[in-house]
Amino acid sequence: MSLVVVGSVALDDISTAEESRTNILGGSASYFSVGASLLAPVKLVAVVGSDFPEEHIRLFESRGVDLMGLQRIEGKTFHWAGRYAKDFTSRESLATDLNVFAEFDPVLPDSYRDADHVFLANIHPTLQNKVLDQLSAPRFVAADTMNYWIEGTPEELARLLPRLDLLLINDEEVRQLGGTSSITASARKVLDKGPKALVVKRGEHGASLYHAQGTFHLPAATVDRVRDPTGAGDTFASGFMGYLAGRVPGKPTFEDLKQALAVGTALASFAVEDFSLQRLVDLPLDKVYQRYQSLAQSIRFVPIESLSPQ
Amino acid sequence: MSLVVVGSVALDDISTAEESRTNILGGSASYFSVGASLLAPVKLVAVVGSDFPEEHIRLFESRGVDLMGLQRIEGKTFHWAGRYAKDFTSRESLATDLNVFAEFDPVLPDSYRDADHVFLANIHPTLQNKVLDQLSAPRFVAADTMNYWIEGTPEELARLLPRLDLLLINDEEVRQLGGTSSITASARKVLDKGPKALVVKRGEHGASLYHAQGTFHLPAATVDRVRDPTGAGDTFASGFMGYLAGRVPGKPTFEDLKQALAVGTALASFAVEDFSLQRLVDLPLDKVYQRYQSLAQSIRFVPIESLSPQ
Repeated sequence: MSLVVVGSVALDDISTAEESRTNILGGSASYFSVGASLLAPVKLVAVVGSDFPEEHIRLFESRGVDLMGLQRIEGKTFHWAGRYAKDFTSRESLATDLNVFAEFDPVLPDSYRDADHVFLANIHPTLQNKVLDQLSAPRFVAADTMNYWIEGTPEELARLLPRLDLLLINDEEVRQLGGTSSITASARKVLDKGPKALVVKRGEHGASLYHAQGTFHLPAATVDRVRDPTGAGDTFASGFMGYLAGRVPGKPTFEDLKQALAVGTALASFAVEDFSLQRLVDLPLDKVYQRYQSLAQSIRFVPIESLSPQ
Repeated sequence: MSLVVVGSVALDDISTAEESRTNILGGSASYFSVGASLLAPVKLVAVVGSDFPEEHIRLFESRGVDLMGLQRIEGKTFHWAGRYAKDFTSRESLATDLNVFAEFDPVLPDSYRDADHVFLANIHPTLQNKVLDQLSAPRFVAADTMNYWIEGTPEELARLLPRLDLLLINDEEVRQLGGTSSITASARKVLDKGPKALVVKRGEHGASLYHAQGTFHLPAATVDRVRDPTGAGDTFASGFMGYLAGRVPGKPTFEDLKQALAVGTALASFAVEDFSLQRLVDLPLDKVYQRYQSLAQSIRFVPIESLSPQ
């Protein structure tokens, strides 16, 4: 039941319409590893520079994250600065300083190679493929990607997709990858490219699962106040994969994937309630389950038997 | 079980990335009356000019729509021209020629005044209030509005809201009316302004119902190809109100409103599959019910009992 994540660990500067923070822990693999650690033991593969604060290392350690695969090399840690528009409807990247991340070469420690579950966060598809080459026989492989790779490295991405049990992307990305204006039609085209299942993340509007056995839609969980949406997608993925790795023995069924999507949705709703990993670090599992139940409640209805006049 | 709708009847010019049509039947009350006529007898209150084609009159008549309240006056019919962006993520109004609609004075024929159900489509809130003044004792009153009135006539709108059983607006409008960046928090603030329930339309991401007894979310129904999203919101309202007027005796419960939302969702998904009212005119009720069932299927899952390790 081990879960390997490969992605970025970053130091972020974030501004919203109301607040700002500088030099806070960010990056896809940070959100993922801390989120998933609530449900399964996590092994991290990432790179940080010599400036990376010890307190963040201790934070990962406090969640039992295996740091054998965390490379620490001379130089500065990946730095991202972003500003969100009012209502969080869009965001602008103010700085993307790759620093040591530019030379990231994900080498898996021997103790990682027999992992059952793998999440390839949004990095170059060549590196994502390279990670898979190092795994002996993973049971479930999920990956994220983005417009940059969809446009820039389509062949490497095409080689990755058939190797995936699950591709997790957002609504814009599925349209771009599927090449149609309809999310549904695009989702079908994306499935034709090889991944066994597809999750489309729709931000505050929820998420959808597309699978050979059907489609499943779930709204987002209710959040009173969004403070920082950074990391919501990776936290969603962490709940999804953490649930599969920690609670589902064997190959997951369509029903298991629906459950995983709901756990991811519940968990992601906490990530946005504060900056960085604040809400995730000490989050009790029963709080996640309470939100999961509210979410399940919010979609409950008993379909009518007929629309004909009685 | 009579259902009165007050709104616009228009002649539209529509361009999408792939197609365009000129001088086609549009307007909120057109979509609403034809959509709702599948489920309940509809009485229309609107105004058209002397240029309004007879074939559109016959179309309304073919659906049994009561046209006693359709004013026909000298001049040109309301004309709207709009262009949708690729992916239908936004639209631009190219022309809004109110023509005879500028002087619209909704007077209800005597035979309309004892209507049980009323839908006030998006018109000046003063006129919406005026329509309600003419009704004897409606059982269920729903209204739409828009940013223009939220900004421009807040006092008239504030007078309308406590008179409503249901306000139906979109995600941008709820944020504007509620004054927060969160749909959920804004929805609560809107309910505080007086309507007994609120539906937030999220376009291709579905719709949410906010009610004293809880919240209900439903995704949009699957559409293979969107050709023209014009009228989707009014068709949604038509299914919602048509279901209440035609199938729910007495005051609707929270469960009835959930059902109504699902019927509206199913019906709206047909409207966008073609231009104007093409898909709605001859739509068999069992096709609507089939889509309703697929929709219900797409949200079905059995929540897990616990997130704790087994």
